Amino acid sequence: MAGAQTLSKVYRVRAEIDTMLGELRPGDRVPAERELAGRFGVARETVRHALRDLAVEGRIRRQGRGTVLARPKVVRPLAPEPTGEEGAGVVRSLLSWVDGLADVEVARDLDLPPQTPIMTLERLMHADGEPIALERTDLSLDRFGWLRAGFDPAGSLSATIGGSGVEYGGSTERIETVLAAPREASLLCCRPSVPLFRVVRRGIDTEGRPIERVAALYRGDRVAFEVSTAGRRR
Amino acid sequence: MAGAQTLSKVYRVRAEIDTMLGELRPGDRVPAERELAGRFGVARETVRHALRDLAVEGRIRRQGRGTVLARPKVVRPLAPEPTGEEGAGVVRSLLSWVDGLADVEVARDLDLPPQTPIMTLERLMHADGEPIALERTDLSLDRFGWLRAGFDPAGSLSATIGGSGVEYGGSTERIETVLAAPREASLLCCRPSVPLFRVVRRGIDTEGRPIERVAALYRGDRVAFEVSTAGRRR
Repeated sequence: MAGAQTLSKVYRVRAEIDTMLGELRPGDRVPAERELAGRFGVARETVRHALRDLAVEGRIRRQGRGTVLARPKVVRPLAPEPTGEEGAGVVRSLLSWVDGLADVEVARDLDLPPQTPIMTLERLMHADGEPIALERTDLSLDRFGWLRAGFDPAGSLSATIGGSGVEYGGSTERIETVLAAPREASLLCCRPSVPLFRVVRRGIDTEGRPIERVAALYRGDRVAFEVSTAGRRR
Repeated sequence: MAGAQTLSKVYRVRAEIDTMLGELRPGDRVPAERELAGRFGVARETVRHALRDLAVEGRIRRQGRGTVLARPKVVRPLAPEPTGEEGAGVVRSLLSWVDGLADVEVARDLDLPPQTPIMTLERLMHADGEPIALERTDLSLDRFGWLRAGFDPAGSLSATIGGSGVEYGGSTERIETVLAAPREASLLCCRPSVPLFRVVRRGIDTEGRPIERVAALYRGDRVAFEVSTAGRRR
């Protein structure tokens, strides 16, 4: 465990590196640990700690044997009208699509009795060729079993459901921070214990009936969320 | 560094403890490390790691020499119409209130030239007697200097500004995860490197002019955010 003195030093160095990064462009190489340690007159361990923190926050990332300035985060709008537009370059790939029975939590969110037949899709979201989120969608099998026949899992579920005549009435999203478990970390190509956003969304139709429950894990180092009410009021 | 094998074991134990916690009520004592290690047939180090993760996520917390089940997280609505209602039991205390000059970032968000005179309030938010957020508000000194005369820093800035005849037209909030720096960790009574939410809000008036920039750090183990569009559409 590093003492308070050491930690302040880490944060001072981190702030100095952060300022220095302002001069670089995404993909530009960050100077090596040894060079930074020399420049700021601190131990390499201090620089390593500062770089680790900057990587967790998504400012920099490993590339080969070096470190480069990361691209800006993917900004995801919250509780948008579900148009299926996820931002430029975001694509989904299917990991699994299985039938099952609703557990207590899913049943509550879908307003179904526990053990009701549901189907569950697990999809990985990529942006710029990099995994950014792991998304699990639960739907009533009775109401949405027809999706089996025609839905392309790389497409937008909301758009397909919306196109079938079901009208979205709104949604609720809840956001928390959690730490990546090993399977999640491995799928998202991040280190275990990296902070993730956990976002649980419930979409309802115009009569207030739940349509879907989507539980997604987003990489905190690659994604920022934005919510705007500007212009909604008169 | 723990290997992958050990990490899977940590997460298995963490899931088992999590299930066990379902039986407890907030404030109830969590069994000791040694007891849990015996029950699940693993090393104490594995239990310690699992408990640390559960504490970071806010399921449990230290109390004296033991560990207890934490209270549910404080749920904060995002981009609400600024009513000043922050949820039951949330109170603010003033840390500092200073005049200064806008840096590049603040100037951009307030739509002012850099180096324009501003005032900056730093306040700590508590819920149930526990610090949950550190909030920094930047305002144009020219437009809002009058707040010096009458604003109670424990109150709601938005309500006071709204009461003065300025009408809010909307807001934009951006959410990221960051790690606590030592000063922040100390003010928020959490460990350095605990994941925090960083929320930057810009409030604008009905003519689209920026009113305020609020940059807040929320403890990820104590706060969840919620945003809802239910009922907004016809």
